[in-house]
Amino acid sequence: MNRTNLFHLIQQKKSFLCVGLDSDLNKIPKHLLTTEDPVFEFNKQIIDATIQYAVAYKPNLAFYESRGIKGMISLGKTMNYLEKFSNEVFTIADAKRGDIGNTSTQYAISVFDKEASGFSFDAITVAPYMGEDSVKPFLAFPGKWAIILALTSNKGSDDFQLFADAEETRLFERVLDRTSKWGTPDNIMYVVGATKAEMLEDIRKIVPDHFLLVPGVGAQGGDLNAVAKYGLNDHCGLLVNASRSILFASAGDDFAEKAKLEALSMQQEMETILLNNNLL
Amino acid sequence: MNRTNLFHLIQQKKSFLCVGLDSDLNKIPKHLLTTEDPVFEFNKQIIDATIQYAVAYKPNLAFYESRGIKGMISLGKTMNYLEKFSNEVFTIADAKRGDIGNTSTQYAISVFDKEASGFSFDAITVAPYMGEDSVKPFLAFPGKWAIILALTSNKGSDDFQLFADAEETRLFERVLDRTSKWGTPDNIMYVVGATKAEMLEDIRKIVPDHFLLVPGVGAQGGDLNAVAKYGLNDHCGLLVNASRSILFASAGDDFAEKAKLEALSMQQEMETILLNNNLL
Repeated sequence: MNRTNLFHLIQQKKSFLCVGLDSDLNKIPKHLLTTEDPVFEFNKQIIDATIQYAVAYKPNLAFYESRGIKGMISLGKTMNYLEKFSNEVFTIADAKRGDIGNTSTQYAISVFDKEASGFSFDAITVAPYMGEDSVKPFLAFPGKWAIILALTSNKGSDDFQLFADAEETRLFERVLDRTSKWGTPDNIMYVVGATKAEMLEDIRKIVPDHFLLVPGVGAQGGDLNAVAKYGLNDHCGLLVNASRSILFASAGDDFAEKAKLEALSMQQEMETILLNNNLL
Repeated sequence: MNRTNLFHLIQQKKSFLCVGLDSDLNKIPKHLLTTEDPVFEFNKQIIDATIQYAVAYKPNLAFYESRGIKGMISLGKTMNYLEKFSNEVFTIADAKRGDIGNTSTQYAISVFDKEASGFSFDAITVAPYMGEDSVKPFLAFPGKWAIILALTSNKGSDDFQLFADAEETRLFERVLDRTSKWGTPDNIMYVVGATKAEMLEDIRKIVPDHFLLVPGVGAQGGDLNAVAKYGLNDHCGLLVNASRSILFASAGDDFAEKAKLEALSMQQEMETILLNNNLL
């Protein structure tokens, strides 16, 4: 899926919502625990409830890896289920990978090469600390995307991402500037936390055309309108992620229904934003 | 295993060699491909051949994840096999993880909590880009270690790790300075590439007591004596990793024997270094 396809999908669904599948076994409704694969059953019901309102799904690999092989089986089933909707969803392996070149190639295979690994995500999140040869292997797979960490939503993002040189260029700006030259807006996106919406204006000066994956709306407290104000571009250019606020909207039997209402509410806000910005 | 235990192990084996299990299915000897689990069979024979000379083993998770669930099974068998030697080896999950707090906790469980994930490594490599709350969850497991990326061995390390502020503090120095306050030399180590041996002098000024995990000797061209000259401390303080130069010393039936000779050769160099520095 290229950037134009993604924009068309956003226009079709009138939404730029990404649902994060941080499917913690300890938090899913108790009545699912008697099913054969509770995490897959949970994900399936969440997907069915939200697919009308979401353009992307982002399994957070940590929540599957923490259950070992069982978790990877749940993830495999979830991705196979999402394949039924492959024309109408973009899939992101939230993995924050990055290593020397030959190792990054293996990580890319682990999420992009279905024959080798069983997985065929559209995109993977990538940590840039190790530089060019750690990022480029993810860009060598046609039609696949690297979503590079720029300015994250957490408190600790201040520790290193705001570290600045003598010209007051901050590390996240250097990451945007350098990495954007290693690929194109058709195979690179950036992670920018919603809790830093005011910085989106600076970010858009460096990467006007790239899509931004924006976590931090919902449970982490970010504001969707502020994100849209500074982050939208002429292809929308935003995928706004919500995880816990949708997945765990209810801990009871009605979890899927409550997830649907939460996703619908976000889609409606997004539709208004898209309309007001002449993007529909 | 704490720092004192690790130093005793180094003294006992007269070695500070870490064997990196970057066990690429496409590179292992052809005659193993007919066995039930070629990667496990390869690892088992490599471990048997080198355990006398190595204090640590470091599976590179990318090479297992790229084979999907089959790869995770090979990794599981390898780690179960290494458990037989748990008093005489330190195990490192080379994973370069790091994410917001609740996600990093899940990554820590995936390598430290055997009951949940099936894995119980002694340590994990961690990428520091996301800051304090992304690193600290790895330090919350008693007896376990986070090995934080500081200055890596690859060419791309220049892109961001050498980024410097107005006082000429470079990012990797800021990483060392800040992260060393989040834990102790008994639960934090640092990755410092052997190809940057001349910078070890600066690094030791910031973290005199921490162990350093040093990749890049062997296939990547780093020099062991230069690493020792600037990197040794009074607990040895070094784990020097070799992967490809040992694993693929021969592509034939004699691969284990050639791996043994390569590990022995490194152990002998290390014994000389330890002796010359009054560490035995």
